[in-house]
Amino acid sequence: MAKLLYSVGMSLDGFIAGPGGDMSWLADRIGPNPAVDRLVDETGALLVGNRTFRGDDPYKGTEGEGEAFGGGWSGPQFVLTHHVPDVPVPGVTFVGDLAGGVAAAKAAAGEKYVNVLGASVARQCLEAGLLDEILVCVVPVLLGDGVRLFDHPGGTRVGLERVDVTQAPHATNIWTRVVR
Amino acid sequence: MAKLLYSVGMSLDGFIAGPGGDMSWLADRIGPNPAVDRLVDETGALLVGNRTFRGDDPYKGTEGEGEAFGGGWSGPQFVLTHHVPDVPVPGVTFVGDLAGGVAAAKAAAGEKYVNVLGASVARQCLEAGLLDEILVCVVPVLLGDGVRLFDHPGGTRVGLERVDVTQAPHATNIWTRVVR
Repeated sequence: MAKLLYSVGMSLDGFIAGPGGDMSWLADRIGPNPAVDRLVDETGALLVGNRTFRGDDPYKGTEGEGEAFGGGWSGPQFVLTHHVPDVPVPGVTFVGDLAGGVAAAKAAAGEKYVNVLGASVARQCLEAGLLDEILVCVVPVLLGDGVRLFDHPGGTRVGLERVDVTQAPHATNIWTRVVR
Repeated sequence: MAKLLYSVGMSLDGFIAGPGGDMSWLADRIGPNPAVDRLVDETGALLVGNRTFRGDDPYKGTEGEGEAFGGGWSGPQFVLTHHVPDVPVPGVTFVGDLAGGVAAAKAAAGEKYVNVLGASVARQCLEAGLLDEILVCVVPVLLGDGVRLFDHPGGTRVGLERVDVTQAPHATNIWTRVVR
């Protein structure tokens, strides 16, 4: 059965985007990353936040997050939204609730991964106990300020199990499984 | 010449201590870590924050940070404080300013590392351009809330170069050099 994965680039001090949504630090430093390339092959569907889909996330983290799945992705996409557009978009299914969207994306992905695009959707999936795995590509830079991974003050502890560590020329990929 | 290093355990979401300074997550998960054991051998002196030295850091992060250097450390310690105690403490030199403390600790360490104990002192060293290396032991857990690594809103970007990655049974040790 498909698993729900969130993959994201992060600075060593825990930011997934710099101040004002700056993603230049990631583009500058991440370089070739075979683990992410492989992930594209292992992905069967995308679960995408609406703002990420529309490209107007308040921070542009989505550019970095979606990079590997940018222009090249032709598989099914499930976009979470309360307002389904009037004109259908080929390859895109609009879904109104998280659990329903996850279930539909998993069904479409078959034995492959459903990759979550969008920090807010990823956090919602984590909090709802729906997220199966997290791949963090730790980039050697301190940003000092910006958008935090899973930023939710008062959040609770979630156990993880390390599955795999690989090294790209710059980034260190820490692949983990959510323990339930 | 000696190098100034900050070594710290961090959750995957970027916390070095949980809410209220909780360090149980680290004790539970870090397990044996040869990289940290080796570091103790390679350390020639400690640079210690005053609150860390007195053991009343508002968060108890120091327990985790200082663990490897706890009861067993018998080398020289340089403690930053504005109030030198009346009674001398064997092996401890009290210093009033950061740059002077770093210089004295480096001189004492010879060719070995000066290890910084205390998140606040480490941040001050980083901001003053005095920190040479950072070793982050990434622990597979999400804390959701707590004390952040180098928490300084409005902080600026600092380039790092990855030196070494090693895996302990649980933690992933990312050793980096500060690029100046």
